[in-house]
Amino acid sequence: MAKADDLDSETTAVGETRRAATLRLSLYLRQLERLERIGRARVSSKELAEPLGLSAAQIRKDLAYFGHFGQAGVGYEVAVLQSSLRGVLGVDRPWNAALIGVGNLGRALLGYRGFVDRGFRIRAIFDRDPALASKRFHGLEVRGLNDLKRLVPKLQLELAILAVPADAAQEVANRAIKAGVVGLLSFAPTAISAPASVAVVSVDLGLQLEQLAFRVSQQRANQRKQSAG
Amino acid sequence: MAKADDLDSETTAVGETRRAATLRLSLYLRQLERLERIGRARVSSKELAEPLGLSAAQIRKDLAYFGHFGQAGVGYEVAVLQSSLRGVLGVDRPWNAALIGVGNLGRALLGYRGFVDRGFRIRAIFDRDPALASKRFHGLEVRGLNDLKRLVPKLQLELAILAVPADAAQEVANRAIKAGVVGLLSFAPTAISAPASVAVVSVDLGLQLEQLAFRVSQQRANQRKQSAG
Repeated sequence: MAKADDLDSETTAVGETRRAATLRLSLYLRQLERLERIGRARVSSKELAEPLGLSAAQIRKDLAYFGHFGQAGVGYEVAVLQSSLRGVLGVDRPWNAALIGVGNLGRALLGYRGFVDRGFRIRAIFDRDPALASKRFHGLEVRGLNDLKRLVPKLQLELAILAVPADAAQEVANRAIKAGVVGLLSFAPTAISAPASVAVVSVDLGLQLEQLAFRVSQQRANQRKQSAG
Repeated sequence: MAKADDLDSETTAVGETRRAATLRLSLYLRQLERLERIGRARVSSKELAEPLGLSAAQIRKDLAYFGHFGQAGVGYEVAVLQSSLRGVLGVDRPWNAALIGVGNLGRALLGYRGFVDRGFRIRAIFDRDPALASKRFHGLEVRGLNDLKRLVPKLQLELAILAVPADAAQEVANRAIKAGVVGLLSFAPTAISAPASVAVVSVDLGLQLEQLAFRVSQQRANQRKQSAG
């Protein structure tokens, strides 16, 4: 279903740029949530920028793009900026999601508190394994993939979380898209092609471990320097 | 075990800066791997920068920090830069890891191909549930947490992957650290405190879904603009 020229933007240069910018918005939101917890009412672009390793100019540019202008010497209001970042990110309302793949990973994701906390509700679960048909997990009955066509519109499932093996991921993605899903969160360690109208985010757990390996290596190098110095 | 002044850097301003810089190195590596697959031998800092939404100056600064200097008009050699980034990131050699928590998520991670592909080997699995004791998953026998002390040094387990509930995460982290683990990859949706000598990376799956929600929202806004125009 995906042609060479409408490959998911995730795999293109434009996708990388967009991903970097979006990630910054999420990081600003996390920072603002942290500031609110410690009782801060205002923040300057410099204060927001420094902990993230960014320039104040970058922050001002990102926020101005969404119509937000801090005042010199006064900065941004934490609560106001937070709520409008939620609006921009689209997380100021709940999202209904399908979970496809009810194996170990799928069952783990069903119980993942971090999804519910951010307003993501898994409202239907699907698996192609007939042995799972009609079994229930977290109060939801496992449906076959043929039910996607009926349940995606009925339950207004906008997103699908793909917890399927790499070799099944593209076919399952195609079926979810055909049923009307407009966003895919894929845990399969493979690239997913989708039409330009469908957003795809791939979770690369290997990259996370790589980050950890780097930090351990760096700390060891620092310790060696310190004990040599 | 963690005091207020030796909280994991992940939760501090310094940690955020370091995390942003490290993530850039991983993204450069992914880009270089992609370029190699399409047969490119050289790349300029501008070409590396643009798809990532960064400036060429940022890339040059990051790479110069690790001793790499592209030549004007010639750029970087893809293979050489790749191999030295692997060295800097510490992924030019295998890493042994413990998996703690052999529930649904843990079992899913055990079979995750993306770890093995990047050189991460789970060599022992632990769970505090006596019902799991001595059961085998992916060829590994489930050990009790008391075995950490003996097996971490014996199997040279440098990293631990924590796939335990939020309320157990800190205690399990403490035990792994005490046994000698120097890096933690935590999937628990909670902050982990650790001494400064231990690296902690937390995987925030909620943030990934937030990225997806944003992209779907943006695409809808663009479609509305197009149909209005």
